Amino acid sequence: MSIIDPMPPAILLLSGGLDSATCLAEARANAFDLIYTLAFDYGQRHRHELSCAIKIATHYQVKEHRVVTIDLRAFGGSALTADIDVPKDQIIDAPTHRTPEHAITNKPLPITYVPARNTIFLSYALAWADVLGIDDVFIGVNALDFSGYPDCRPDYVAAFETMARLGTRRTQFRIHAPLVHLTKAQIIRRGLELGVDYAMTHSCYDPTPTGQACGHCDSCILRKRGFIDAGVSDPTVYA
Amino acid sequence: MSIIDPMPPAILLLSGGLDSATCLAEARANAFDLIYTLAFDYGQRHRHELSCAIKIATHYQVKEHRVVTIDLRAFGGSALTADIDVPKDQIIDAPTHRTPEHAITNKPLPITYVPARNTIFLSYALAWADVLGIDDVFIGVNALDFSGYPDCRPDYVAAFETMARLGTRRTQFRIHAPLVHLTKAQIIRRGLELGVDYAMTHSCYDPTPTGQACGHCDSCILRKRGFIDAGVSDPTVYA
Repeated sequence: MSIIDPMPPAILLLSGGLDSATCLAEARANAFDLIYTLAFDYGQRHRHELSCAIKIATHYQVKEHRVVTIDLRAFGGSALTADIDVPKDQIIDAPTHRTPEHAITNKPLPITYVPARNTIFLSYALAWADVLGIDDVFIGVNALDFSGYPDCRPDYVAAFETMARLGTRRTQFRIHAPLVHLTKAQIIRRGLELGVDYAMTHSCYDPTPTGQACGHCDSCILRKRGFIDAGVSDPTVYA
Repeated sequence: MSIIDPMPPAILLLSGGLDSATCLAEARANAFDLIYTLAFDYGQRHRHELSCAIKIATHYQVKEHRVVTIDLRAFGGSALTADIDVPKDQIIDAPTHRTPEHAITNKPLPITYVPARNTIFLSYALAWADVLGIDDVFIGVNALDFSGYPDCRPDYVAAFETMARLGTRRTQFRIHAPLVHLTKAQIIRRGLELGVDYAMTHSCYDPTPTGQACGHCDSCILRKRGFIDAGVSDPTVYA
């Protein structure tokens, strides 16, 4: 696009994790300069990520950062929101034997799966987009090297887009998921190219009260492996 | 279905209005006996509908009624949630010149449109459904004789269903919208056949503090016309 035709404003789901921080850097690299970020306080054990999201939003000088409180605990059903232990040191698919992108529903979902979480998050992003008149929403989902959640797959993202165009005034609504086909190591390499400071990000599902990563949950294991596979040092402080 | 193969449990969005009460009666008439109802406190002006929803849920002896508090006011943009006057005595499409079901985005939406409201409501229903292992969700939307909201159309409902099947464990997820092709008068006639007591329901967008209907907002006008067209008396007490 030319100077007289700047990129439109965008809304970006910013959890405070490694993926959404990289997604924000990628949006900026693609000349989306006017970005509104959205985080959710949904009663997650790892509320430390919310303070990371604020730090990242401030660092990237976003137009506005909002935290919406939603009550996912009301329904329970996940180790991330209910009184269920977060599994530790489980054997999960390593990058060398990844889950096929379209076969996820064939295996049981991990207990850290939060039912319809991304659908609820994207619905709020859609509501804000429709109020602001914004057509572009970024989400840092990736369908490889993740915990096997169905709402991270490209066909899910495409289906949400279709539904959103029919259900609101945003008939040109687009979801950008720039990380969807990348491995965790590829995300980290790309983020470092873009200057992301991963020390500002938080991935752990079960941190200490001061926000230190446990080092043993699925999310920590995937993060650790990502840095190893990318061949770079991991700035994370593990408890 | 036979006695040894009963209808599955279902979740029903129960606003406390005329449509959702009829939808509940219709679900019951179709042998969905185990129904969980869900209402939302989203900062709406017409919070009186929430007490109506509780009365209706109690009357129909639902399995469980939940009220989820969500913050749609955070985004504003609607006369139902923001500090914008609810329009009164506007000329709206009468039943004789209805809005075509697939041409709604061609006309401006009314200020009472709440951006992405049904998407957010259905997302919460989907989350609860996924926790409970329920595949059937009822919603009382109708694409005729309504205020022109895009998220009441059959193609929107179908697109949500597709998205939901891809994004959760509910690969057989179904949305039942039994009123979608009915006029307001047809809904009222059907409801009366099913024994619905419309005095228990509330439609007004801008009621008095004691819950009396204003008689002049879009929702009151549609309701009044519906009773007139159905040729039955309107039990509503107008202010």
